[in-house]
Amino acid sequence: MNTEQTPNTGAAPPIGGILETAVYVDDLALASAFYERLLGIAPMLKQERLHAFPIAPKEVLLLFPRALSKDDSLTSFGVVPGHATTGPSHFAFRIDEKNYESWRSWLGDLGIPLTGEVNWPQGGRSLYFEDIDGNVLEVATPGLWANYRTE
Amino acid sequence: MNTEQTPNTGAAPPIGGILETAVYVDDLALASAFYERLLGIAPMLKQERLHAFPIAPKEVLLLFPRALSKDDSLTSFGVVPGHATTGPSHFAFRIDEKNYESWRSWLGDLGIPLTGEVNWPQGGRSLYFEDIDGNVLEVATPGLWANYRTE
Repeated sequence: MNTEQTPNTGAAPPIGGILETAVYVDDLALASAFYERLLGIAPMLKQERLHAFPIAPKEVLLLFPRALSKDDSLTSFGVVPGHATTGPSHFAFRIDEKNYESWRSWLGDLGIPLTGEVNWPQGGRSLYFEDIDGNVLEVATPGLWANYRTE
Repeated sequence: MNTEQTPNTGAAPPIGGILETAVYVDDLALASAFYERLLGIAPMLKQERLHAFPIAPKEVLLLFPRALSKDDSLTSFGVVPGHATTGPSHFAFRIDEKNYESWRSWLGDLGIPLTGEVNWPQGGRSLYFEDIDGNVLEVATPGLWANYRTE
């Protein structure tokens, strides 16, 4: 970022929110089956390089096999830059307070151990667990953030 | 996941969407300043271990300094598991079609080069660029996904 030549020209254009959240995995088929079962949601797109889950309106979870997603894709409709990480990443799902104990039971039914549980001092509570690649997942009820106080 | 002992006991409990999307950085102060300027949004929380940006209602972008976030946090209100990745990750912001050229101009004003541009065959278009840690960011207009056809 070249800040020397660029005086602040004013406010940034608006954004609507976060469209895509990515998680990197070793075996795409296995990871996709894990998320499909965990969430009860089928992928809306399955390609060799990614599976895409429609988590909510305008919110997409992308599963990338790190060995394939690291390289740029030169398509007929433009360049899609490559990316891939190693090590455990984190993301969190919103859940209603009334479904908190159901989520605990569901994780137990699936044989997924809890790796943490937090009762936030500001309100809300979280269950932490891992996907099959060791990524750190969370389900959290309202209260946790200033922009997440109600359902 | 122990699937042998766990017959499918029915549908997963509902989720509301993706609450937290994380990006891992080397220098938290520098990265936070980058995102604050890029988005025109100030962090709602600044801690040594994370900065949190309120991107939209119920949507939070978390910046983690990988050297500090990798270890578990043993707090008085519960265990917060550690996580950290290396290498470039990806996430995308929703933007309205009418703001597409404004975003191109704004990135130019900030001295941020485009690393890719895509006109998706199914509709919608995307600008790709990098944050100061090399993470692959995208702004995308409606059309791109089956659950993102309108603004």
